[in-house]
Amino acid sequence: MSERFTFTLLKSDGMARRGEITMPRGTIRTPAFMPVGTAGTVKAMYPGQVRELGADIILGNTYHLMLRPGAERVAKLGGLHTFANWPHPILTDSGGFQVMSLSQLRKMDERGVTFQSHIDGRRYELTPERSVEIQGLLDSDIQMQLDECVALPASESEIERAMQLSLRWAERSKAAFGDQPGKAIFGIVQGGDNERLRAQSATALREMDFKGYSIGGLAVGEPQDVMLRILAMTTPILPTEKPRYLMGVGTPDDILESVARGVDMFDCVMPTRAGRHGLAFTRFGKVNIKNARHAEDHRPLDEASDCPASRDYSRAYLHHLFKANETLGAMLLTWNNLAYYQSLMAGIRAAIDEARFEAFRISTKEGWARGDIAAL
Amino acid sequence: MSERFTFTLLKSDGMARRGEITMPRGTIRTPAFMPVGTAGTVKAMYPGQVRELGADIILGNTYHLMLRPGAERVAKLGGLHTFANWPHPILTDSGGFQVMSLSQLRKMDERGVTFQSHIDGRRYELTPERSVEIQGLLDSDIQMQLDECVALPASESEIERAMQLSLRWAERSKAAFGDQPGKAIFGIVQGGDNERLRAQSATALREMDFKGYSIGGLAVGEPQDVMLRILAMTTPILPTEKPRYLMGVGTPDDILESVARGVDMFDCVMPTRAGRHGLAFTRFGKVNIKNARHAEDHRPLDEASDCPASRDYSRAYLHHLFKANETLGAMLLTWNNLAYYQSLMAGIRAAIDEARFEAFRISTKEGWARGDIAAL
Repeated sequence: MSERFTFTLLKSDGMARRGEITMPRGTIRTPAFMPVGTAGTVKAMYPGQVRELGADIILGNTYHLMLRPGAERVAKLGGLHTFANWPHPILTDSGGFQVMSLSQLRKMDERGVTFQSHIDGRRYELTPERSVEIQGLLDSDIQMQLDECVALPASESEIERAMQLSLRWAERSKAAFGDQPGKAIFGIVQGGDNERLRAQSATALREMDFKGYSIGGLAVGEPQDVMLRILAMTTPILPTEKPRYLMGVGTPDDILESVARGVDMFDCVMPTRAGRHGLAFTRFGKVNIKNARHAEDHRPLDEASDCPASRDYSRAYLHHLFKANETLGAMLLTWNNLAYYQSLMAGIRAAIDEARFEAFRISTKEGWARGDIAAL
Repeated sequence: MSERFTFTLLKSDGMARRGEITMPRGTIRTPAFMPVGTAGTVKAMYPGQVRELGADIILGNTYHLMLRPGAERVAKLGGLHTFANWPHPILTDSGGFQVMSLSQLRKMDERGVTFQSHIDGRRYELTPERSVEIQGLLDSDIQMQLDECVALPASESEIERAMQLSLRWAERSKAAFGDQPGKAIFGIVQGGDNERLRAQSATALREMDFKGYSIGGLAVGEPQDVMLRILAMTTPILPTEKPRYLMGVGTPDDILESVARGVDMFDCVMPTRAGRHGLAFTRFGKVNIKNARHAEDHRPLDEASDCPASRDYSRAYLHHLFKANETLGAMLLTWNNLAYYQSLMAGIRAAIDEARFEAFRISTKEGWARGDIAAL
């Protein structure tokens, strides 16, 4: 624990980094995967379970929480940690990304964005200053600046315009955040798939001296190799002594390859969302539990796993739960998937600690390539 | 544990009874509440949680399981205990009740009932013999005879016809079940709200010498006082040394009043179904968590409860989860409700043990009458 937000780089192995963020609410071991608790709950999981799997931090979505139950209400109830029964660190996004993907009748200008709630049509405004205020009301430990993220493919001029706007909003966000020693706000690198613009964004943000840096606008439609190319040229521009967070990424393979390019933090709805739809992640790749091949398979998803969901229930039972639309199916597959993601992160951290990350990367990919156990 | 199904009456207090069923898979402390695991899962609960709350036995629904995943498939997978990851006793119904309430194109005659699945329209036949066979394939510890249950109000001739048919089916069910020392099949008393017919049914079943007796056809539309009047005249006809199971009942008050009339076992979807719909049971009555009065209430459902769901989450958070349609809402309220039901049963058992059941009944009802804590 620490009264101040501090990042310590413990070890490097190639470009892969092993580190630790300390802050008043706890320590975050990096590389870290942050489960997504959109509306104040990591869907279909008890918070105690999320913690036990090894999550040091979860993510909350400003857009969802500002609409319901409302930031002022969460503040009145003691902040998001008390509200969601999660006393450990919480990172929040700025709300901007989901305004763009979920809300209606958006209007964006230099000042910010106005939009209508997708829930009840109410009108809201989100500016860099209001986003910082909302994230403060939620009592977020790590805030994000408001930015504009463009979907790829997009024209260079469109990417540049959004990147420049995001830089101006970065300045305003940082000023609004002010001096909060135990907390942090991260600047967000934009620039799409354009290396020149990415370099310009990263350099400008570096000069603003944020406590950490997010890399946004990736995994938004481009192929994985484009994302990895952009990452490989971006992270070296960012300061070594600050954490780097790749937003909204990704598959286990995306995470492994991004760690190899110097990323420290990740979040993604993939393990939770896929779990609710019958898709399991394991050491041996993905398993679609709804597939008829599992209907009479008495074997668990992974008999060697420590997670009860992976080890103590047959594939036949999981298959049945999804066919019968039973809540327990989503509960068990979400649990399995978050357990797999966290075990992957633990494996990555141990490998970097022991300077064998490259070997870990190869053996992990071999497991995925081996594929699921043969049908009975 | 015991190799044979055995019921021991440990203590009586008025008509209330404290007992114990021992059988190879475990001991059932009575009065017992059996959570309903319709399709092989107590909805929105991990089986380990159900056990930890104090459930010695759960119920499985033959109708649901025979349609999906199918009794032969469950048998192939090692039986319902292995399938559902519940190594403790399981009671199954005969399937008859849900054929009547859920299936389509039923045709009933002396032989049994044919019907179409509500899931895929497939045609099935359920006879007393096939019901016993299916319950055997599920490896049920306590089976029910196939019976015919009529909804009330109904004419005396209709009630009598169904009761007589149920008696003939009781003979056939018992013969089909044969001699299984570690398991049991219960006969089911029918006769609607008619005391003469109830007495006739109970007397005839008593002569057939079942290992236990169910009381069916109550809580099917009649007022509570009618149910309690029928119970009060039925249980004295049943043998003292056999357990008595009141099927599908009920509210906490129904359970308390039925224990006072000599009932030993209960099952009901109420705590689980109500939990999924935002209704919480507590020591101080029912709480509709969707009500706006809870939106900013930082207090838990019951701060004195041992159950994390009741104690560690604010009403405001639970309210939010239901408003946002989050799975965790159903998970927490189901947990709270089953915890309350099991704590009620534990309280009932302790009170009978200590010959203070009447005082317990009064004080418990006073708690319910007090009502929920005042709004903030």
